[in-house]
Amino acid sequence: MTNQKATNVTWHDGDITYKDRYNRLGQKGVTLWFTGLSGSGKSTVTVALEKALFKLGKMSYRLDGDNIRSGINKNLGFSPEDRTENIRRIGEISKLYCDTGIIALSSFISPYRADRDQARKLHEDGGYSFIEVHVDCTLAEAEKRDPKGLYKKARAGEIKNFTGIDAPYEAPLNAEITICTDKMTLEQEIETILNYLQEHRYLMA
Amino acid sequence: MTNQKATNVTWHDGDITYKDRYNRLGQKGVTLWFTGLSGSGKSTVTVALEKALFKLGKMSYRLDGDNIRSGINKNLGFSPEDRTENIRRIGEISKLYCDTGIIALSSFISPYRADRDQARKLHEDGGYSFIEVHVDCTLAEAEKRDPKGLYKKARAGEIKNFTGIDAPYEAPLNAEITICTDKMTLEQEIETILNYLQEHRYLMA
Repeated sequence: MTNQKATNVTWHDGDITYKDRYNRLGQKGVTLWFTGLSGSGKSTVTVALEKALFKLGKMSYRLDGDNIRSGINKNLGFSPEDRTENIRRIGEISKLYCDTGIIALSSFISPYRADRDQARKLHEDGGYSFIEVHVDCTLAEAEKRDPKGLYKKARAGEIKNFTGIDAPYEAPLNAEITICTDKMTLEQEIETILNYLQEHRYLMA
Repeated sequence: MTNQKATNVTWHDGDITYKDRYNRLGQKGVTLWFTGLSGSGKSTVTVALEKALFKLGKMSYRLDGDNIRSGINKNLGFSPEDRTENIRRIGEISKLYCDTGIIALSSFISPYRADRDQARKLHEDGGYSFIEVHVDCTLAEAEKRDPKGLYKKARAGEIKNFTGIDAPYEAPLNAEITICTDKMTLEQEIETILNYLQEHRYLMA
């Protein structure tokens, strides 16, 4: 990005709006909502997508357990009510990022369809796009990968309310994008997502 | 901003970090925390500052009652505990914006010193800068302006727990910037803030 040092930039007289920010950044603010089982590959794909977008000159930001569960939502647990409030808050933050002009890569198990639909409604009611990305993978495969050893603990009863074991995962019915991480390469997954974003003109103002 | 279409951009092998984003945007992510009485002029100065920064090619985003109280914090009221949770969440969101590379203009009465200090600590512990801006104005002047007619209602007892009337306002003891909106012009206020940001090298990567 080149600094704009000229003081004669033209913009309208009112407040700076999301449209001004989109024009400046050369992209639209949009939320990509990654949902899938623990171990399905959400982090792997969002980290790679963030790099690919950066390479294309696009600004994205990953919202995930690392910066949300230990930050704004550290006062929430894993009961159904807390999971709902967790996703509600993440939906609101993602929407702020859309308004800011940033591509939000929101990556959470988010097992309940109603919660995801609520996050979608929040965006669409505000005029922002919500792109649901189903990070699809069989439970058997996710459990085999078990990158954090959590399935093992859940099977041993050391973790309760674990999605896929003793808590439900409600798969999307109409996700905009589905990536099958047990069938596709990471490159194919990224290509699928970038193609969608380009075809729908999100990567231009 | 010019789109970066070349695919040979060099960056390190790990994740995209806040430093990569700062370099790309040509600025540092930082939080400017505006605190002051209702009617002190917080909105006026943040709207004008957002425009001035945009003109300089810098990306900022206003977090304020309009997009927070009606969004992520709509399940919070005005009790001391809810005010504290309100400011805690805003502090966390502001910190996310710092990490994203955006200049957060967080504008809230935020009457309790301890709450603001907590937001500051959150930033500084994470390696981000927190710049407290005291939007200073006498209660008499703020009440005379009364842009939303709220002081009138508070005096009539129609609003309870109103800061300055029947709830305390704890002024900052060591704000990085103080603007006296009953003594300075808006242009002087903006100049004061921009000078601070430039002297402390926030407006470059």
